[in-house]
Amino acid sequence: MSETIARSAAEAFRQLKTLSDEERSLALVQIHHALQRDRAHILAANERDMAAAREALLAPSLIKRLDLGLAGKYDTMLQGIIDVAQLADPVGQCTLARQLDEGLNLYRVTAPLGVLLVIFEARPEVIANITALAIKLGNAVVLKGGKELYETFKAMSECVARTLAQTSVPAAAVQLVQLRADVSGLLLQDRYIDLVIPRGSNALVRSIKENTKIPVLGHADGICSVYVDALADLAKAQRIVVDSKTNYPAGCNAAEQLLLDASLAPLLQVALVQLVVDAGVVPHVTPQVKHLLPPALQRQCVDADAAAFDTEYLLLDISVALVDGVAGAVRHINEHSSKHTDCIVAEHEPTAAAFLKGVDLAGVYWNCLTRFADGFRYGFGTEVGISTNKIHARGPVGLEGLMSYQYQLRGNGHVVGEYVGGGGQRAFVHKDIDKL
Amino acid sequence: MSETIARSAAEAFRQLKTLSDEERSLALVQIHHALQRDRAHILAANERDMAAAREALLAPSLIKRLDLGLAGKYDTMLQGIIDVAQLADPVGQCTLARQLDEGLNLYRVTAPLGVLLVIFEARPEVIANITALAIKLGNAVVLKGGKELYETFKAMSECVARTLAQTSVPAAAVQLVQLRADVSGLLLQDRYIDLVIPRGSNALVRSIKENTKIPVLGHADGICSVYVDALADLAKAQRIVVDSKTNYPAGCNAAEQLLLDASLAPLLQVALVQLVVDAGVVPHVTPQVKHLLPPALQRQCVDADAAAFDTEYLLLDISVALVDGVAGAVRHINEHSSKHTDCIVAEHEPTAAAFLKGVDLAGVYWNCLTRFADGFRYGFGTEVGISTNKIHARGPVGLEGLMSYQYQLRGNGHVVGEYVGGGGQRAFVHKDIDKL
Repeated sequence: MSETIARSAAEAFRQLKTLSDEERSLALVQIHHALQRDRAHILAANERDMAAAREALLAPSLIKRLDLGLAGKYDTMLQGIIDVAQLADPVGQCTLARQLDEGLNLYRVTAPLGVLLVIFEARPEVIANITALAIKLGNAVVLKGGKELYETFKAMSECVARTLAQTSVPAAAVQLVQLRADVSGLLLQDRYIDLVIPRGSNALVRSIKENTKIPVLGHADGICSVYVDALADLAKAQRIVVDSKTNYPAGCNAAEQLLLDASLAPLLQVALVQLVVDAGVVPHVTPQVKHLLPPALQRQCVDADAAAFDTEYLLLDISVALVDGVAGAVRHINEHSSKHTDCIVAEHEPTAAAFLKGVDLAGVYWNCLTRFADGFRYGFGTEVGISTNKIHARGPVGLEGLMSYQYQLRGNGHVVGEYVGGGGQRAFVHKDIDKL
Repeated sequence: MSETIARSAAEAFRQLKTLSDEERSLALVQIHHALQRDRAHILAANERDMAAAREALLAPSLIKRLDLGLAGKYDTMLQGIIDVAQLADPVGQCTLARQLDEGLNLYRVTAPLGVLLVIFEARPEVIANITALAIKLGNAVVLKGGKELYETFKAMSECVARTLAQTSVPAAAVQLVQLRADVSGLLLQDRYIDLVIPRGSNALVRSIKENTKIPVLGHADGICSVYVDALADLAKAQRIVVDSKTNYPAGCNAAEQLLLDASLAPLLQVALVQLVVDAGVVPHVTPQVKHLLPPALQRQCVDADAAAFDTEYLLLDISVALVDGVAGAVRHINEHSSKHTDCIVAEHEPTAAAFLKGVDLAGVYWNCLTRFADGFRYGFGTEVGISTNKIHARGPVGLEGLMSYQYQLRGNGHVVGEYVGGGGQRAFVHKDIDKL
């Protein structure tokens, strides 16, 4: 079953990629209209999922994410489809143009990636977002949703499928599978599927990464830290330390660790821990840190356990350690970080430079919050995930993370045998020319 | 053992990436001098490998690849190290600069990838090439050579290790392992190794791809084809069909398939098959093609077997089929191609456009030889492989395929809580600014 789904997606991709931008964008407009028309029906289905979730006593935060009826959510979802439809054609953009010889021109052009497998939990609007992005970019997509979305998913996928049947986009280009295939079967289809995008819990992402050879775009953990240098501006440190933890603790870009320069004045070290406590956060402190604190403050902390510096709390908890200056911070972060985003608070430029150069991360920040690591805040228009891979896309990923490229070579009967290296005498020109 | 090697490479990478371009380039110059000084010793070791290879009756083509004493080969290898040392610093190049708000600036800069695992056979000069590239780019590398290179590898690796010990480059940044670790153990080190680059036979590449979760840069097969359209210029077709097969049959970018438009005049179809035979090539023909041929020509062909269109011959053999115009060619190629490079010979521009748009390949060529698919011919200066992946790097891969990037955000105490989406009112500016 999984193979049939993946193979038909690959076949649909080959057809989809030959369509014009107009054809692909028109299909999006039609999906927009259909979802508009079916709003009451889809929201009723969503209500049934919500009722089941309440009955199953799912977490309120999860139930909130399921809820497509929240004020403005459905309209935002619809508008998102139109926004994507109106983007400039992302396919066939020329990024390199070079004359190799008289009449022999090389072009590198953007091309769709192929077949995406998107596995998501809880967020029904992902169905519309990803469908729109995939079609606009010329990618086929297999969407696999969690069972907590059974009714919503069914209603939306019927609406999308019915609509696509009236467009030039092949029906199998967007397959919304739920009960028809299990995740493990789909993850084996590396012959047909080019990229997996998990949207859900860390456990989901980790399990996917461990069970597939298909490249996975995303991150399992966001273990971000803030290092406060001895020469930090304390006002900045205060703002950054507190907001990085408390602004949205459940975010993957929230801070989970506070690293204090061992040569920071003990008074200031204590003040920073007190500040965290006053913000309602529980510090998990090393013996070294604990030793500095007055008894009353000690009682508001817990002892850092063995896993404290490899844990993503996603709650109002933070691990606190002393490190030996910027070198110690770099060492600690390279050892413990999830390669997401870490921050130094420091005024001395060479110190900051040593930090930025030393840590091996998707995001290296100086005097600002790790929570800025986000595709929208970066101005990417859309975000398909935050990648902690170093291959392909790293950090917040916009549309280009779902694209590949290909080389076009246009000649006039040219053969290699006439050139140096191929047996002949002609040399290559290698001159930049006008892009397509 | 494999884990120790990989972990120490990861640690060395963290140190290597903090070195300046001057320090990294100076280490290359010193390796150049040392290999110059040890030339006689290394060539003597290479002679012992050659003698063993002759005794083991290895293929003459393989023995030739082992031979570091061939006229000019050693000097070319040495010059290559200096060429790489003199390249502009590839690390820290700013590729995006954007103001997010007053005093909050985002920069995307190139960064080394991390730890490379290079597994190679037969070509001793790879040791010097890859060592130079890795150090210049700030990547650590584990080089694993085949046993046919035992003596050469030992002599060169001792020379490199001895030299690095006198530079700022940590010794573990370049580890030449031979007997100390097996490939299968290294392929499991996805925690420490970021990219595998196989340089060797298809069987080697395929086996590596099947046995690792680390991204693999390369291609197992090069099944390239030439499609001759009904409206082709026959002079161009002649040149391209013959040269694409005979110029260097062992190349991954040599043609393995000849696809003839079914509506090409039968006389011309026969003439093209005759041309191939006259060039010393054995056509493997479908019954449809065979049916067209006069008995004398039939006798110089063999019947295409079931695997004929999924086989990379690397010899003077070519599979020949009729296809239904450009649509048939696209269908055939998407079904059988290895996504490397395929070519259309056609004069009608819309036909060529349909081909270029329809096939999903790293290289789509019009009226020129598939053998142009090569980093040097593309003008990349160096080539680290040809990738048939769609993720990260596709087609011939130059230096940038061994690089990643990271985002630097420089602020002044900025916190998310003040911005729209984070709980506040400030909007982002998202204005392009001067690059670093």
